[in-house]
Amino acid sequence: MTDLRTDGRAALEWAAQYLERVGELPVLAQVTPGELRASLPDTAPEHPEPFSAVLEDLDRVLLPGVTHWQHPRYFAYFATSASEPGILAELLAATLNQVSFLWRTSPAATELEGVVLDWVAELLGLPRGWHGHIEDTASTSTLAAIIAARQATGREEIVCSQQTHSAVAKAARMLDMGLRQVPTDDSFRLDPNALGDLSEAAVVVATVGTTASTSVDPVPAIADACASAGAWLHVDAAYAGAAMVCPEHRWAFAGIERADSLVVNAHKWMLTPMDCSLLWTKRPQDFRAAFSLVPEFLRTPESEDALSLSEYGPALGRRFRALKLWAVLRCYGRSGLQAQIRSGVALAERFEQWVADEPGWELCAPRRFSVVCFRLRGDDARNRTLLERANSSGEIFISHAVLNGRYVLRLAIGNFHTTEADVRLAWELLRGLAAEFS
Amino acid sequence: MTDLRTDGRAALEWAAQYLERVGELPVLAQVTPGELRASLPDTAPEHPEPFSAVLEDLDRVLLPGVTHWQHPRYFAYFATSASEPGILAELLAATLNQVSFLWRTSPAATELEGVVLDWVAELLGLPRGWHGHIEDTASTSTLAAIIAARQATGREEIVCSQQTHSAVAKAARMLDMGLRQVPTDDSFRLDPNALGDLSEAAVVVATVGTTASTSVDPVPAIADACASAGAWLHVDAAYAGAAMVCPEHRWAFAGIERADSLVVNAHKWMLTPMDCSLLWTKRPQDFRAAFSLVPEFLRTPESEDALSLSEYGPALGRRFRALKLWAVLRCYGRSGLQAQIRSGVALAERFEQWVADEPGWELCAPRRFSVVCFRLRGDDARNRTLLERANSSGEIFISHAVLNGRYVLRLAIGNFHTTEADVRLAWELLRGLAAEFS
Repeated sequence: MTDLRTDGRAALEWAAQYLERVGELPVLAQVTPGELRASLPDTAPEHPEPFSAVLEDLDRVLLPGVTHWQHPRYFAYFATSASEPGILAELLAATLNQVSFLWRTSPAATELEGVVLDWVAELLGLPRGWHGHIEDTASTSTLAAIIAARQATGREEIVCSQQTHSAVAKAARMLDMGLRQVPTDDSFRLDPNALGDLSEAAVVVATVGTTASTSVDPVPAIADACASAGAWLHVDAAYAGAAMVCPEHRWAFAGIERADSLVVNAHKWMLTPMDCSLLWTKRPQDFRAAFSLVPEFLRTPESEDALSLSEYGPALGRRFRALKLWAVLRCYGRSGLQAQIRSGVALAERFEQWVADEPGWELCAPRRFSVVCFRLRGDDARNRTLLERANSSGEIFISHAVLNGRYVLRLAIGNFHTTEADVRLAWELLRGLAAEFS
Repeated sequence: MTDLRTDGRAALEWAAQYLERVGELPVLAQVTPGELRASLPDTAPEHPEPFSAVLEDLDRVLLPGVTHWQHPRYFAYFATSASEPGILAELLAATLNQVSFLWRTSPAATELEGVVLDWVAELLGLPRGWHGHIEDTASTSTLAAIIAARQATGREEIVCSQQTHSAVAKAARMLDMGLRQVPTDDSFRLDPNALGDLSEAAVVVATVGTTASTSVDPVPAIADACASAGAWLHVDAAYAGAAMVCPEHRWAFAGIERADSLVVNAHKWMLTPMDCSLLWTKRPQDFRAAFSLVPEFLRTPESEDALSLSEYGPALGRRFRALKLWAVLRCYGRSGLQAQIRSGVALAERFEQWVADEPGWELCAPRRFSVVCFRLRGDDARNRTLLERANSSGEIFISHAVLNGRYVLRLAIGNFHTTEADVRLAWELLRGLAAEFS
């Protein structure tokens, strides 16, 4: 049987070595669809195997199919880091195996979740007294906010911008609600003059740090419009919210105190392993009205006094996600979180400057945080080819967006171990590849 | 800074010692609401603290607030076990930090998920070729199935029994759909004669192993009714599904091949840490129609050929949950999973016999798997008091249900380390407490 001490030491050593060598592995998995599946047996084993066999197959079979999110040259989508305190806390959370659907089934997970959400609220400069809890991903947090908004307003329309994350359109489809996507200005910010009539709007979703270009919607103007129309204001700061730990970025949270709900993903730019999406609201009673359903089997003597977080979101069972966030906040502190943000932004600034200075290349959106949108001048096809060649090299992994109808490349910095040498390597690789077909 | 090797060894030692001593701790947390929160600081630290400080506070501050799901005398709700292979796999999953919203962002997580869902399907005797993926909890799996059913049928009504899990009523409220709960027979099974007109039903939810008494709805008769009416059949076997690894329990899956979707929670009775809810469907195209939304930034060269599991459920970001299930299946094998089920059922049978043989006590529902519903003869208040006294002793944790309008006690076996001595202790404790106020 698996022994937590001896097999655990082997797993820990595997993990430590993985993090030491991850920068030498091809960042984007170099397998083809179906290849990995074909190399695994069709059925589970009849009899127990040692844990060492799992570790061996992790190396031999699975690792070639891993795209290395922990790689310092992972620059795609929103780059992330799962830090050591967060990783170890996941080991502890799995050991405790809390299922906190009721306060009494885990007072520790329930109350620690409230505490760490308060801590992060303070770190990001949010108003005191907001109610916070954790969902798995921003898709779920935003879905929950939209459900609460719909029930609170009795309306059926969701309004957002053309740059809003696709999770909002997906929520509209899941909930069978209407969706109106309004145009953005030339900096990809929702144009508040285009909001139009909000009298049927249940909720307006504003974004601080959009997916494509990290643009920041004008929250104060949107809040004005929501207030006049009685619409709920949900702010999606899944990526950029973490940057608010630094005072120099707080401009992007202007008006945030007027939001009805807000999502920030700790698993994006806050050193916490997947999944840990933080959802705050100033209207907890509306969340509770939407999600609380206490059947007989969930009634307990303390039901009246004790908060059960399952009454504030879609799922009943909830794992102990707060533990990893607590470990990260303790082991980095405010100063450590600030250092991580500042390092990412400084590296992005450097990359931005290199692009700006280079003939034949162009920047495609204002850089707000740690993401640079850029392209090789010329047609989309060249940029598409460039991206594919760069990614298939295994040296870097970048992604793309379409802005103003043009295909643009996107370099996102968010891994804690990314250095200037890594960003430099990415730039030299892209320049070199571009030179080959110019 | 936290060091994965040295701090990791300390965390691992903490985990190993925790699992060794958990049986000596009070199973139900003995704190009062707000007590734990009051003992934690109001804000995050300014500067980094060592990981050892986190471990110390875990022991000193958090542990008294933990209800020990890993305790061998945890008998409440559905008792579970997070096994060693599953725990260590969570360490590895956090280390790899995969975010598998697209095939290319984690071919390994995507394809392994398909493989282990096929493995479990075979273990449970499901038809070949069903499409499986993992959600966090059964609440989400059932929500997803209902959304797919609604879109596939264009109908707005959900039909289930009065014993169906509250997640279905919660889904109806979240989705703004109609809900009709039909009566059950004297064994708490959905009465198919009471289904009535299903011509407006999007979906009927049948349960194999209901929450209160683990009753088994008559799936074949419900499937007949769904087929005639064109309604989707979703089967909730969140708890009891795992038992189907044993041929002697397969009677409960009669007709399962006619289900459109099925949920079984690996984190309940399959030795896997929270969260790991398995969702299969024979209609993957209807799931994809409901959930696939591929905006520009998610388009990749292999989009056409490669499966991205985010197209089959509500969330976009997905963590590497398949890894822990794979580790469990490898390290237990079919025989190990069977042993775990048989041990739980045998212990429940024993407890059932003790109750049956004892004057002044009664059984309150047929025992199907590892849950016994029983009560002290007499009024509800006595049973309520008995439950509270038993739970506040710290020796055992049991829960309750209301069946036929009466308050009943519920003893659920599901922890891998529960022995006959533990069950005996529970029974003697309950008898002793009852004698005190008889």
